[in-house]
Amino acid sequence: METVVLTIEDIRAIVQHVGLDAMMDEMIRHLRISLRQFDDQTTVIPIRKGFEYTHPEIGLLEWMPAMQRGDNAVIKIVGYHPTNPRMRHLPTVLSSVSAYDTISGHLIGVADGTFLTALRTGAASAVISESLAKPDAKIIGMIGCGAQAISQLHALSRVFDFERVLIYDSDPAVSGSFAERASFANLPVSGVALEELVTTSDIICTATSVEIGKGPVFEDVGLKPWVHINAVGSDFPGKVEVPISVLRRSFVSPDFLGQAEKEGECQMLSPEEIGPGWVEVIKNPDRYKHVQQQMSVFDSTGWALEDLIALEMFLEYARELKLGQRLHIESVSKDPHDPYHFVHADLSKKAPEPLSFSQKEKQVV
Amino acid sequence: METVVLTIEDIRAIVQHVGLDAMMDEMIRHLRISLRQFDDQTTVIPIRKGFEYTHPEIGLLEWMPAMQRGDNAVIKIVGYHPTNPRMRHLPTVLSSVSAYDTISGHLIGVADGTFLTALRTGAASAVISESLAKPDAKIIGMIGCGAQAISQLHALSRVFDFERVLIYDSDPAVSGSFAERASFANLPVSGVALEELVTTSDIICTATSVEIGKGPVFEDVGLKPWVHINAVGSDFPGKVEVPISVLRRSFVSPDFLGQAEKEGECQMLSPEEIGPGWVEVIKNPDRYKHVQQQMSVFDSTGWALEDLIALEMFLEYARELKLGQRLHIESVSKDPHDPYHFVHADLSKKAPEPLSFSQKEKQVV
Repeated sequence: METVVLTIEDIRAIVQHVGLDAMMDEMIRHLRISLRQFDDQTTVIPIRKGFEYTHPEIGLLEWMPAMQRGDNAVIKIVGYHPTNPRMRHLPTVLSSVSAYDTISGHLIGVADGTFLTALRTGAASAVISESLAKPDAKIIGMIGCGAQAISQLHALSRVFDFERVLIYDSDPAVSGSFAERASFANLPVSGVALEELVTTSDIICTATSVEIGKGPVFEDVGLKPWVHINAVGSDFPGKVEVPISVLRRSFVSPDFLGQAEKEGECQMLSPEEIGPGWVEVIKNPDRYKHVQQQMSVFDSTGWALEDLIALEMFLEYARELKLGQRLHIESVSKDPHDPYHFVHADLSKKAPEPLSFSQKEKQVV
Repeated sequence: METVVLTIEDIRAIVQHVGLDAMMDEMIRHLRISLRQFDDQTTVIPIRKGFEYTHPEIGLLEWMPAMQRGDNAVIKIVGYHPTNPRMRHLPTVLSSVSAYDTISGHLIGVADGTFLTALRTGAASAVISESLAKPDAKIIGMIGCGAQAISQLHALSRVFDFERVLIYDSDPAVSGSFAERASFANLPVSGVALEELVTTSDIICTATSVEIGKGPVFEDVGLKPWVHINAVGSDFPGKVEVPISVLRRSFVSPDFLGQAEKEGECQMLSPEEIGPGWVEVIKNPDRYKHVQQQMSVFDSTGWALEDLIALEMFLEYARELKLGQRLHIESVSKDPHDPYHFVHADLSKKAPEPLSFSQKEKQVV
């Protein structure tokens, strides 16, 4: 029985074939449809859990499961290690993601979760910003210019007609390289003082690695009365990005309340200060259209549904393009009652095709 | 950055090189040492969680994480789908297991968890039976003759000098094929009535797929006063194998109390009826030597430490034998701040060697 392993070479071939813009558009479209159709009876998403540690360095390794009943389950394992770029020249977020058939338990596929996380986190901000930000937003401000900021700008620029990008990062080397990294967006990028960014932007994205207890990452001075903030920074208990005074007079929509209360901006709020979740907002855009004229915050902690949709998309593209390595990982032999049978069996014989996401794909599109 | 993927062909090559008996002996030895040295400050093992479902068929998909602080984490994903053998010609337990470096979050390796589960579940029963069963046990009885029974018999036959194996399965086809599947043990195997098995055996292993609410799987009649029972059956809330009257007059040692109370035999007991966990027993064999003359039950629900040790062993063997596919799964490119960099980067360049378990291996051995 085969497992499709998508290497990063496969993902690259997919992106090169489909195009980054088209891929982000597809991710946004799938996510929007899935949120509108979301039903917690058929899609089960437990609160993520993980290992947290502070020695030898601060870090977090979390598992994020999601299941479509009677269909597939996806589990993303995601590491958040903020010393990675400086100390190991690696991304802060490293991740992989796997899909399982819930009929048999079979491991259907394994793929990178790092690019996937960037892509789907960007798409999430785009989908909710469509509902909560001013449709004619022209200036976007990025606080924190690392990896996540790239896909935030990418996704938002696919659904808004921006004229300018203002950027700020506490590390000048990181803000200094942003324009080149974000050149695909074809937008003028200006490094500015934090105050100017905050007072000028129609939409703000915070995507920082601010340390625990060192937040917020900007001050509550001169914000536009209609500003929409996507608070994205990889989340951690005790880590916050947005000033509490801003949260208190904003419409705050979390992606997943149980997580946001523990690791997101909602940590700072009492339950009555937290607005409806994004599923409610996306399902009922007219009900929340007035919020476009008010301050709003999307508390993005990352929801496993986003990962499930993204992996579906990758596996479907891989199937169409005949990409991916088909490996026999699980020990499955002719006699299901003999765990040692494979030791002597001829494994080179053709195994059945793995189940694909094609059936569900048809339902969603 | 490379991930070592062990296919089942790799695992087969390892087993053929090392030998099944030597491999089981190593697994037992590593597990025994790890339990003796176990310290819950350095090894963190949360209670496993999972998706449970009854439609379209009954099943369970669980994630079992374990972390050695400052070192590696291992997460096993294990499916329990009892209709697999009959309906899909697949094992009831299908599983895969992954290792992560907790310094960077890097995915070190991925391997089969199905054979691994059989191996380590057998080894677990062997290690605790050494402490709790009569050292001169001669007759072992297997209730349930499926895949797990094979490795139970294998492991126990490595540490006891059995003369006979009595077997019983509710499905005559499964008991009928047991002798051939277990031929490696070189022991006479007799299919017997359940009553004879129960009254004659010195050690009993229950490894059944009894349905929820249909247990126990034998009656409390005529058991030897010193019988030791390894209650192994893949666990599920509501599923039990051992009569409550047997549990109540036995020394009951769970592998992981939090799980055993939820899905193991301990479901039926109040806290004061449950004995010390197996770590306590293995660490203090003299303190529990008297139990060898009494009835005892090992409530084996499966503990992620066993998986961590087994995967360590597989990866170490693979390293020594230069087996396994080294794949670039995670998107890691030259610029950790650019999630899209890999799309254009030359990925064929040599990536750094993955971290291995070799350092820890030295400490354990």
